[in-house]
Amino acid sequence: MEDTLGALRSLMASHSPPLDALVVPSEDYHQSEYVSARDKRRQFVSGFTGSAGLALITTKEALLWTDGRYFLQATQELSDQWKLMRIGEDPAVDVWMADNLPKEAAIGVDPWCVSIDTAQRWERAFGKKQQKLVQTSKNLVDEVWKSRPAPEIRPVFVHPLEFAGRSTKDKLNDLREKLKQEKARGIIIAALDEVAWLYNIRGSDVSYCPVVHAFAIVTSNSAFFYVDRRKVSSEVNSYLNENGIEVQEYSAVSSDVALLASNELIPLSVLKGTETAIKKDVASETVIAGHEKEEVEGKNNLDRIWADPGTCCYALYSKLESDKVLLQQSPLALAKAIKNPVELEGLKKAHVRDGAAVVQYLVWLDNQMQEIYGASGYYFEGIGESRKKHSETMKLTEVTASDKLEGFRASKEYFRGLSFPTISSVGPNAAIIHYAPNSETCAEFDPDEIYLFDSGAQYLDGTTDITRTVHFGKPSEHEKACYTAVLKGHIALGNARFPNGTNGHALDILARVPLWKDGLDYRHGTGHGIGSYLNVHEGPHLISFRPQARNVPLQASMTVTDVDTAKFITMLEFLFSEPGYYEDGNFGIRLENVLIVKDADTRFNFGDKGYLSFEHITWAPYQRKLIDFSLLTPEEVDWLNGYHSKCRDILDPYLNESEKAWLKKATEPASV
Amino acid sequence: MEDTLGALRSLMASHSPPLDALVVPSEDYHQSEYVSARDKRRQFVSGFTGSAGLALITTKEALLWTDGRYFLQATQELSDQWKLMRIGEDPAVDVWMADNLPKEAAIGVDPWCVSIDTAQRWERAFGKKQQKLVQTSKNLVDEVWKSRPAPEIRPVFVHPLEFAGRSTKDKLNDLREKLKQEKARGIIIAALDEVAWLYNIRGSDVSYCPVVHAFAIVTSNSAFFYVDRRKVSSEVNSYLNENGIEVQEYSAVSSDVALLASNELIPLSVLKGTETAIKKDVASETVIAGHEKEEVEGKNNLDRIWADPGTCCYALYSKLESDKVLLQQSPLALAKAIKNPVELEGLKKAHVRDGAAVVQYLVWLDNQMQEIYGASGYYFEGIGESRKKHSETMKLTEVTASDKLEGFRASKEYFRGLSFPTISSVGPNAAIIHYAPNSETCAEFDPDEIYLFDSGAQYLDGTTDITRTVHFGKPSEHEKACYTAVLKGHIALGNARFPNGTNGHALDILARVPLWKDGLDYRHGTGHGIGSYLNVHEGPHLISFRPQARNVPLQASMTVTDVDTAKFITMLEFLFSEPGYYEDGNFGIRLENVLIVKDADTRFNFGDKGYLSFEHITWAPYQRKLIDFSLLTPEEVDWLNGYHSKCRDILDPYLNESEKAWLKKATEPASV
Repeated sequence: MEDTLGALRSLMASHSPPLDALVVPSEDYHQSEYVSARDKRRQFVSGFTGSAGLALITTKEALLWTDGRYFLQATQELSDQWKLMRIGEDPAVDVWMADNLPKEAAIGVDPWCVSIDTAQRWERAFGKKQQKLVQTSKNLVDEVWKSRPAPEIRPVFVHPLEFAGRSTKDKLNDLREKLKQEKARGIIIAALDEVAWLYNIRGSDVSYCPVVHAFAIVTSNSAFFYVDRRKVSSEVNSYLNENGIEVQEYSAVSSDVALLASNELIPLSVLKGTETAIKKDVASETVIAGHEKEEVEGKNNLDRIWADPGTCCYALYSKLESDKVLLQQSPLALAKAIKNPVELEGLKKAHVRDGAAVVQYLVWLDNQMQEIYGASGYYFEGIGESRKKHSETMKLTEVTASDKLEGFRASKEYFRGLSFPTISSVGPNAAIIHYAPNSETCAEFDPDEIYLFDSGAQYLDGTTDITRTVHFGKPSEHEKACYTAVLKGHIALGNARFPNGTNGHALDILARVPLWKDGLDYRHGTGHGIGSYLNVHEGPHLISFRPQARNVPLQASMTVTDVDTAKFITMLEFLFSEPGYYEDGNFGIRLENVLIVKDADTRFNFGDKGYLSFEHITWAPYQRKLIDFSLLTPEEVDWLNGYHSKCRDILDPYLNESEKAWLKKATEPASV
Repeated sequence: MEDTLGALRSLMASHSPPLDALVVPSEDYHQSEYVSARDKRRQFVSGFTGSAGLALITTKEALLWTDGRYFLQATQELSDQWKLMRIGEDPAVDVWMADNLPKEAAIGVDPWCVSIDTAQRWERAFGKKQQKLVQTSKNLVDEVWKSRPAPEIRPVFVHPLEFAGRSTKDKLNDLREKLKQEKARGIIIAALDEVAWLYNIRGSDVSYCPVVHAFAIVTSNSAFFYVDRRKVSSEVNSYLNENGIEVQEYSAVSSDVALLASNELIPLSVLKGTETAIKKDVASETVIAGHEKEEVEGKNNLDRIWADPGTCCYALYSKLESDKVLLQQSPLALAKAIKNPVELEGLKKAHVRDGAAVVQYLVWLDNQMQEIYGASGYYFEGIGESRKKHSETMKLTEVTASDKLEGFRASKEYFRGLSFPTISSVGPNAAIIHYAPNSETCAEFDPDEIYLFDSGAQYLDGTTDITRTVHFGKPSEHEKACYTAVLKGHIALGNARFPNGTNGHALDILARVPLWKDGLDYRHGTGHGIGSYLNVHEGPHLISFRPQARNVPLQASMTVTDVDTAKFITMLEFLFSEPGYYEDGNFGIRLENVLIVKDADTRFNFGDKGYLSFEHITWAPYQRKLIDFSLLTPEEVDWLNGYHSKCRDILDPYLNESEKAWLKKATEPASV
């Protein structure tokens, strides 16, 4: 690690201009949350393995910013050379740089790894002291990363209409309608899940995310797919061509964006007229001139290029004329969030199979805990630590258990892998919000400790994500009180009704108020969107205490005005309800279900806005032993009994007799 | 009105440069919410009398923007020449101007009537089409306003320490400490309540607000008070001088800000050394040079001037060098919001006397309604419209009733006037959120209609604001359901606990969720600060659905780190809980209490942030007849009974025997 920092500082010194600091973000060229192994530059330089963070290397210091989910983990993983900067407590990175780096400092970053928004925010902060954001021509980390994994060639495959629910042609039509509305000549699509969703293709370039490393450019009469061509079979190539999509080399996106900026990006469909395979950038003046004329006359002078400031990288933005860029969230973000009826149905079905796997896992785990550790089990409170009969030959660890959970999921129809690294955490590890157990160092199960598992899978018909917290021995009164407070927040959010246009930020508090009553809280958001056989974390909507959540109102599909999509009247956005409580060094609690936003049947309809409510689509029991029923209101007990009863009805067809018996007992109604 | 618009358009055309549009804001030179009669320019040009709004006059159109509180009222008051623009539904004014006014349009505004924030926001919006914000050298409305009221000379008086709780000297010390922390050479204070609070002076220049039309400038060694000198008696002048405050003519603020910018604003205390009354702007080079040297050496080159972008006008900002301005909320906003123990005690006492006046009014009203209209009264449900025995000689109107209410208040100790125009509204008028009855056109009472009154007073020891909604006949089931939903929201907010640092925006939803369950909502915020014998609406904290509320966390005084103020440990911010529901053309419901933010005694203290809760300090019963108890939870009934019981104990000493008997009956406990 020392060598890495030293090597980087040498490169910084010899850079032109010499750099006073180098920013190493977590993101890849597509601003992804999860990145491939060769894109884990921030992890390589800092040693911190969490999914979110930013490293800053100055001539003397090395600092790592991360958020509340990772404070504990970062403390454990960072070496003495690194200083942990806690987001929300310490100054933000741009403020820190402006305050601590010298006047006129040169601060380097790979412009492919930073979004337009972020780069512009930094530049504004730098203005005060005439500091400069320097775009490095090469990625300096790649230069010093001797063992950087080579790129892998994994095939692109088509996501069939029976799961996608809407054809690429229709999606392209919708998108072009949006371009016209916004008077944009074209759009650059950089987010991997947006490219995959738009073209109805999937891949496996990033662990847990069925996406392809690719960019797209779409104009009124063309659509480009920039990808390592070796990943595209002739069948996939034909499918793309049939949909009017031209496949280009990944690296060509850079020059094509420049051509798009000067209105010289000519699609093959236009060039075909000349019946000569003229390369775009050497196209004859005649063709280009004729094409331009048509554009200008026919399209009312569409001179703007649409780039999403949150997902498009600064490198591509720098090739555009800044006054001709439409900096606005990609229209695909919302279109993708609002699920069509086929996706909706698929998601519900995937969650039923997934719920069955979770129950099978709980049954298995319950047996193991009793057999190996003499635990009192899922239903009964043990008498404490007395009955451990643990032997070295029979050992249950966080990793062996989660492998078993993966096995149950893998046995289900349409399974394609996990949707994120399973968080399987015993006792104090459960307080590490995004804990990832390692087979060599992970903890063993303990009947006197809480066990939290947060996991999900990719199925062809949908992506899942569920968290349950259980105890196989005797939970303390404190653990029960905390579990109950978390459950109350989970129920309160799920039962909310709210007017169309309410954003997730406003709803977040509903999950917290029951915790706040006791002076409890959690340092993460309360929800996020989920993809349809795509990323497990999907924007643009969030239920969060973070301010970015406030800009995207939750909404029904009715807002999609296109005639073809007017049939998508069911509903339409996915959310989680995942409150939690974490006590460092002791235990953690989290409960997470996926919710669908749907129309609420309210008595009145003030403001004619329409009111919305949630529907749970995740099915697995809450452990009654961990609930202090004296703290629940009658309405909460009613809700719990109703949910448990549905759980049984829905999951029974997927379970064997002993599993059914276990679930029956787990979901017995409590008296109000 | 037609003449006014015509005359204004002539002035716009002959202006240099000619104006394509003229903005007429509601605000005075101090960005006040309530303004004096001669400052009601927007009302004069548009005819709309609401407190908030903005008029825009183009060469062909006249538009008025206002918010949800005033949609109905504006529809009634605006002539055909005017178009109502609904904030939240129609495009914002800056967006509208940018989209609808021509390229390179010149858009005029009196720079004294617009804040820095607003002017800068407009200028950014105008950038797209190279439009220009033109500062008119005169106020064009004043030019055409023949009957504009003349200025009135009302005396400035000192607000004694027994009510203010903290001396001006101490407040100035605190402020200078803040200036030092922010490396500011001086601060311009434009908000009238901040000037009044800082100098412990009051006046009566604006109806309902005990403030003086004045600016202040404070530097490390000087303090200026810009006011019409005729308002300052020699006693007040001496008080100010003793506190190191120099009185200057109101109009001198403009040139003094320019001197402040160039570091040539010399206080008399410095000039005294020369023993000559040298006028600042002709001060000898020696004196100025010597002074500057001291400043530079002694104060670490304090070169910034602090101006609050929300309250300081663009005219004064334009006299500063923009790169040497600290654009940041005035430190007085928060200092004033966090009440000291004397103010806190005064506010509580004022609210007790005020609550007694409200109960006396209800008793009187109950009798009147029964006598004049044969109403069944406050306690009993009548059988409908059958028993009206109304005579022309005995008539109760919204205005005669509210005059009586003022009478009850006026009989109380320390009464100094109302804190805002009483909203006294029968039936459909109650749906006009900021309805102001007029003695000639106002409605008569009706035993079959809801009556809403929202009122408050200025007392030397505190400012009050309370809303109750009552019915003296038979309320409909729908009215009861709505009243109960509003009450549930009112209780939910009041009972919340939340971590230090939570902002009002996040809490707002708690008052709405019970309404949302039934598809109900209201188009106004849920709370605001209240002054201590100052403005009834006071920032910087709000409980609101409007995004500006999110920036100011609610907090305990513990955050005031100054040693002298460390004794202010009680608590310390004031808030309202005022949810409502309004049905245009039918009725309106609102319930409003003043709440104090105080430390909460939670079982745990996650994150060591400290948790806060509210305490009600308003005392008056809720009408049990309007409550559908089947919709309340046991906790809510408990809360109501507890509040009513305290009400009785606290108000009894201020009531006569029959009033006591009435209150006893009004506050009888309901069974859970």
